Amino acid sequence: MKKNATEAQIEQIIRWVESVGYRAHPSRGVERAIIGVLGDDRTKSQLKSAEYLPGVEKVMPILKPYKLASRETKDGNTIIRIGDLEIGGPKFIIMAGPCSIESEEQLMESAYIVKKGAAHILRGGAFKPRTSPYSFQGLEVEGLKLLEKVREKTGLPVITEVMNTTDVDLVGEYADILQVGARNIQNFALLKKVGQARKPVLLKRGMATTIEELLMSAEYILSSGNDRVILCERGIRTFETATRNTLDISAIPVLKELTHLPIIVDPSHASGNWKYVLPLSRAAVAVGADGLLIEVHPEPEKALSDGIQSLKPEKFYQLMEEMKSLERTMRTEMQVLR
Amino acid sequence: MKKNATEAQIEQIIRWVESVGYRAHPSRGVERAIIGVLGDDRTKSQLKSAEYLPGVEKVMPILKPYKLASRETKDGNTIIRIGDLEIGGPKFIIMAGPCSIESEEQLMESAYIVKKGAAHILRGGAFKPRTSPYSFQGLEVEGLKLLEKVREKTGLPVITEVMNTTDVDLVGEYADILQVGARNIQNFALLKKVGQARKPVLLKRGMATTIEELLMSAEYILSSGNDRVILCERGIRTFETATRNTLDISAIPVLKELTHLPIIVDPSHASGNWKYVLPLSRAAVAVGADGLLIEVHPEPEKALSDGIQSLKPEKFYQLMEEMKSLERTMRTEMQVLR
Amino acid sequence: MKKNATEAQIEQIIRWVESVGYRAHPSRGVERAIIGVLGDDRTKSQLKSAEYLPGVEKVMPILKPYKLASRETKDGNTIIRIGDLEIGGPKFIIMAGPCSIESEEQLMESAYIVKKGAAHILRGGAFKPRTSPYSFQGLEVEGLKLLEKVREKTGLPVITEVMNTTDVDLVGEYADILQVGARNIQNFALLKKVGQARKPVLLKRGMATTIEELLMSAEYILSSGNDRVILCERGIRTFETATRNTLDISAIPVLKELTHLPIIVDPSHASGNWKYVLPLSRAAVAVGADGLLIEVHPEPEKALSDGIQSLKPEKFYQLMEEMKSLERTMRTEMQVLR
Amino acid sequence: MKKNATEAQIEQIIRWVESVGYRAHPSRGVERAIIGVLGDDRTKSQLKSAEYLPGVEKVMPILKPYKLASRETKDGNTIIRIGDLEIGGPKFIIMAGPCSIESEEQLMESAYIVKKGAAHILRGGAFKPRTSPYSFQGLEVEGLKLLEKVREKTGLPVITEVMNTTDVDLVGEYADILQVGARNIQNFALLKKVGQARKPVLLKRGMATTIEELLMSAEYILSSGNDRVILCERGIRTFETATRNTLDISAIPVLKELTHLPIIVDPSHASGNWKYVLPLSRAAVAVGADGLLIEVHPEPEKALSDGIQSLKPEKFYQLMEEMKSLERTMRTEMQVLR
Repeated sequence: MKKNATEAQIEQIIRWVESVGYRAHPSRGVERAIIGVLGDDRTKSQLKSAEYLPGVEKVMPILKPYKLASRETKDGNTIIRIGDLEIGGPKFIIMAGPCSIESEEQLMESAYIVKKGAAHILRGGAFKPRTSPYSFQGLEVEGLKLLEKVREKTGLPVITEVMNTTDVDLVGEYADILQVGARNIQNFALLKKVGQARKPVLLKRGMATTIEELLMSAEYILSSGNDRVILCERGIRTFETATRNTLDISAIPVLKELTHLPIIVDPSHASGNWKYVLPLSRAAVAVGADGLLIEVHPEPEKALSDGIQSLKPEKFYQLMEEMKSLERTMRTEMQVLR
Repeated sequence: MKKNATEAQIEQIIRWVESVGYRAHPSRGVERAIIGVLGDDRTKSQLKSAEYLPGVEKVMPILKPYKLASRETKDGNTIIRIGDLEIGGPKFIIMAGPCSIESEEQLMESAYIVKKGAAHILRGGAFKPRTSPYSFQGLEVEGLKLLEKVREKTGLPVITEVMNTTDVDLVGEYADILQVGARNIQNFALLKKVGQARKPVLLKRGMATTIEELLMSAEYILSSGNDRVILCERGIRTFETATRNTLDISAIPVLKELTHLPIIVDPSHASGNWKYVLPLSRAAVAVGADGLLIEVHPEPEKALSDGIQSLKPEKFYQLMEEMKSLERTMRTEMQVLR
Repeated sequence: MKKNATEAQIEQIIRWVESVGYRAHPSRGVERAIIGVLGDDRTKSQLKSAEYLPGVEKVMPILKPYKLASRETKDGNTIIRIGDLEIGGPKFIIMAGPCSIESEEQLMESAYIVKKGAAHILRGGAFKPRTSPYSFQGLEVEGLKLLEKVREKTGLPVITEVMNTTDVDLVGEYADILQVGARNIQNFALLKKVGQARKPVLLKRGMATTIEELLMSAEYILSSGNDRVILCERGIRTFETATRNTLDISAIPVLKELTHLPIIVDPSHASGNWKYVLPLSRAAVAVGADGLLIEVHPEPEKALSDGIQSLKPEKFYQLMEEMKSLERTMRTEMQVLR
Repeated sequence: MKKNATEAQIEQIIRWVESVGYRAHPSRGVERAIIGVLGDDRTKSQLKSAEYLPGVEKVMPILKPYKLASRETKDGNTIIRIGDLEIGGPKFIIMAGPCSIESEEQLMESAYIVKKGAAHILRGGAFKPRTSPYSFQGLEVEGLKLLEKVREKTGLPVITEVMNTTDVDLVGEYADILQVGARNIQNFALLKKVGQARKPVLLKRGMATTIEELLMSAEYILSSGNDRVILCERGIRTFETATRNTLDISAIPVLKELTHLPIIVDPSHASGNWKYVLPLSRAAVAVGADGLLIEVHPEPEKALSDGIQSLKPEKFYQLMEEMKSLERTMRTEMQVLR
């Protein structure tokens, strides 16, 4: 309440709180009164309107607005199984491949590199979200078919992005994991639709999405019936322009505290430059992420999109070796278990 | 080029630039060489990959990436006609109404207020993008039908949001203007779809969208065949939490310089608080915007969404009077013409 | 408290709160308990440590941390008198002049323009905060002497920046208003020192300073004994690069609600481009600011600093006319009184 | 140049560029001309004014504005020696201690913990920059004397903050390293003054300081004659509020590429919460930082400032062990050398 709120105003607020179905717990101090409100939080956006009533200074929510994504709801970590792989389990998982699928040859070569490096999952975009309508938009269905072909030949599970509600079923026929991109983090129609799919969903944080909003978007998927959600930190937009985005490395331990869902890091999009992908990948494994999503390309200087942030094969192999060393040190010497 | 780039490296870059279809114009200084690159910018994301080549320090784009939205492409301003109304013409246009359509009674009362205040267009959400899956999601089709009913009774044109590609045709049957919300600013599937619709589109800037990206999203709609796009500034996300978003008032004169499309301001979502809607509306008309999108509700304290940012009827009437005074002063005394 | 906090933990917190000198008001809900804490807020940063205690989920401050700057402490607005001028009174005040004092001739010409345009106060920097140590750093003491000379000849009061505690007395001998720049917003040694000066202080918001922090910095000056503080909004740093900073126009009505101190707007630094100074000045008067701080230069293309954001004389005269029209309209037709 | 710039305008710009002492290298394309400008960059802020001239679209700087801090100026890394310690050398350096010096007992206990954990340098604030004038402002000179006492007893070098130009000499008598805080990152008077001191300077990045601006502030110190500068990343201000600031982990590899100066990380201020200090410290060593600055307190729940972000002794010992394991793995298995 405001400093000069009258007793009548306090009484009015208490009655109003009760009229909308909550219980009010007033505490009267010398200078100021506080009214605690307890009840069902599903409709709490309505409580905010109390600021319209006389004598009210501010309405402050206390409870977290997500439920199914919260550690309060579920003990232990969610582990997502794809064949023999476990995402969110003790092993650090690496998803790698080109930004866009450009041709069968390029995708096959990429898959060969991914496999030789002993990464776990092949990534590659068939539908590409591009800022400009004049940029290459992906091979679309043809890209999906190439993914299927390469997956059969190599045995690698595949992850690819879906951008449109009408494509969810189609993409689900080809992909082992459906990716929802940063730009669709609050495309609620898409979130509900992938929530009905029978495939795991990798949900990328948007560039201006808070950690709480990321969990609310996960909640859309979980509450639509799909409990296999992988979160992905890929950098947020800040004033700094030295990197394409600012990797919010602190988001990993914060999310580990708040949610049981696995969290992976995309250092390629976060930095926008291959030079920073190795050090940021080291940071990601050290900070406790469950895996990486990175871009690798047989010939990055010829890539149709995002070439500058893709690793060349030799750098990728080095990265894979380094990840193993760090993972082993953390598990054996430091007893850091995910 | 880097400071220590060799002549052979410079030559190599010149050849590479020409091999990807551009012309190179090198300037050699005492300490450093610069290579100007001229040619078709549609594929220029590929040029960025030159940073992978030896001796290259940085690739800096010079041209703006949008075309149809640019003043370079079109003389004069785009004026969008809806019946007798002109958006982007000399008259300041006000779109007002409730955040969500809640009932026939609530919408009729709102329309009555809008009409009494002499605003021009009725706004009201049937499909609502909500951060939480547990919040009220709108009346959906039933809401569209109420809009139609009220529009017939009052003669007010209506604007309402469309969130899903599969709803574009449906919403287009009821609405005079299709609204694309801030969260869908880079939902490219939706942008292409409304680009095929025969209705004007109001495109809201996303909370982390640069002015250039806003124009690129408009470019998606324009290049899909729909040249009736209205831009809307509704606040960006910054570190400041005293207001829900930070109204980027400078975006209006910047956009007026770059594009021929009309630009309106949404002070309700920008500030998130009815108390600031009046002063920010005054600022919007003074800065040269083409209109306002504001929330008004017969009883804001009972609203199912965003009550705290909705104006009560009497405040709304005051706002309408003030807008007229400022508009007249600007036109007659200051010779400021849009 | 956390969801699963025990009664013993709740009791422990209540005892702890009381042990550090506050009163505890617990409210127990079905799922969760809240403990309201009331008492002297001067030491409340210590309360934050309660998050270290078992069972505590979060400590949320309720009271505003500033006192003297708050409307709760003082009725009415602070009006600062300089000769016949009143800053924060009914009249819109314009401070104008060059970014840097470059020569006697340049300063005299600028003052002539300021006077001809009927602006109220002459601005000009003698000590210049420059990002690069190699940029022009100002004429320093020589600049102050020029200011004095021009002030005597024209009768215009002058405002100039002070950057160093050791210069406060010196600058105070020459200036009518001491300016504390955005980069020194949390230079607490300087704030305390100008708090002991007998001159009004114009305090510019820093580029990453929240409104609350701005008021806390004002509180440093006020609590050191100087109650003549003018706040200045000059743009904040965001992701948008189309303008040098993002003018936070909403800060004006927010500050008008929270504090009794006058607030002026600096559209020149906010936008970094003379093209946007006119529209942003219109927005500033319309939104309810108490005045403007703007850059004007006889020949901006020859300025030693910030030329691109300085108005040419003819544009400045136009601005002065426009401000008068808008001010009159607001006062007479709209009954908007500061 | 603008798209429609005339040949006469191009010629005028070439003459203007030459009149201000630069050489012009025009490249004429079909649609547009570009004029490369080469010359001494010390006065280049003047070039920006060319945007005032007819036909000019945009002035884009190419060269980095810092010199002495740049890798272009100096081969190898700067190593700063304090007794036997090397900052910026092969060994990871840890500076630890309480936020504020509160009493002799508290500082002695802290130093004992720091020594027992085998950290290298003791930190502790005597002058404290506090947002509120009513918060504990530090023990000031008394605190410096305690630092000296503890330093003599333990042999630990000490680092402490200096906030005011008039205190630089005084603090320099007691401290082995002078710390310039985030809020003073562009307090140019202070930067110049510590640039004249004979002690190494730890320069903390401000919360809205770009990497380029951080290097420009270092340039102030270097160009004033002090070449012993340590940079410190301590988190930047973004929209995310789950942590006090957002640790910009990418800044480490970016700075390693741009500058020869050592870079350390402050995970305590970056996150504002002890729970995240361990994982972020792991990330800091993995990403390639030269050291850490962390807060440790014998009894954090009783700290007079920042208790919630201070480690308890046992957590600190764990951190020290983990840093050793990671450092060894990086050096021996990964051949990552700073």
